[in-house]
Amino acid sequence: MENHKPRIALDMDEVLADVVPKFLDFYERDFGRRPKKEEWWGKKIYQLPNAAHIRGYLHEPGFFADLPVMEGSVETVQWLCRYFDVFAVTAATEFPNSLRDKYDWLEKHFPFIGWKKLVLCGDKSIIWADYMIDDHAYNLERFKGVPLLYTSSHNVDETRFTRLNNWAEVRAFFEEEIRKKGLVPA
Amino acid sequence: MENHKPRIALDMDEVLADVVPKFLDFYERDFGRRPKKEEWWGKKIYQLPNAAHIRGYLHEPGFFADLPVMEGSVETVQWLCRYFDVFAVTAATEFPNSLRDKYDWLEKHFPFIGWKKLVLCGDKSIIWADYMIDDHAYNLERFKGVPLLYTSSHNVDETRFTRLNNWAEVRAFFEEEIRKKGLVPA
Repeated sequence: MENHKPRIALDMDEVLADVVPKFLDFYERDFGRRPKKEEWWGKKIYQLPNAAHIRGYLHEPGFFADLPVMEGSVETVQWLCRYFDVFAVTAATEFPNSLRDKYDWLEKHFPFIGWKKLVLCGDKSIIWADYMIDDHAYNLERFKGVPLLYTSSHNVDETRFTRLNNWAEVRAFFEEEIRKKGLVPA
Repeated sequence: MENHKPRIALDMDEVLADVVPKFLDFYERDFGRRPKKEEWWGKKIYQLPNAAHIRGYLHEPGFFADLPVMEGSVETVQWLCRYFDVFAVTAATEFPNSLRDKYDWLEKHFPFIGWKKLVLCGDKSIIWADYMIDDHAYNLERFKGVPLLYTSSHNVDETRFTRLNNWAEVRAFFEEEIRKKGLVPA
């Protein structure tokens, strides 16, 4: 059966999963102090002075296994699934140890998305969907549907895309889409 | 930089990787004899009488780790990469133990494809590409580009798609596409 709900491709890291606290933990472990938000806001934690090695921790088994869920995302994605065909699309193949962790994390926190609608990939330009929510401009630049930038410290200066600051704003954006398009829950 | 080569999405199992010998091995182990080709041609090995449990072996760690490469595929994919943007797109999320095996298998046999162009997914209707080579009609049915059916025992009665019987035919098909579209190697 063809599915005619409009499709949303949801990024995982920094959209569904909060990566920042873990990076801050690693920074604190390695440098003996937790950096203040004004230090890292506007960049990635591993772009702080002498902290480039912290990106390497993404390769460690377990890094992605216990990330906290973004506030409000579970309830809102559950609601979105009534109107939209929701996929989780995550850049994972750069970090082969993340593959199983990301699968397990999604099954644990978003079991209603399910394995059929999980995409573990590298280059997201292969994704076909109506909407993409992502924190990386380079994923949205080449996307053929409606690009939606989820705010993350590293993208605060980006101005080319509709910005969603949190999951309440995601919900408000799609309430308006549902109204404009006259979508009904399936 | 935008990549303007036409894109090909290549399935892995039964297109790049030969799954049949391993299924035959399991059948032989469980039933004490190797089924003849005329028994399983036209279906999957696990559709033989009393053999439904064999599909469950796909869940075992290592199942995908040591599959043989389809004859002629390595050289032909290497050649295709000169003219096309080649992705490996494999249904893997149904079998979480396969994720790392499939990553490792591709890195071993097709390192020139690389992690950026590996997609581990469930429902392939999310894939955007110009061509898709796949042995499953249900993946091709919903594909928006040119669907190409790679012959496998279970699809021999399928008539809706251009059929490619082996990697020599894949090469011949794309030689003609390159000629018609005037593509030059990048």
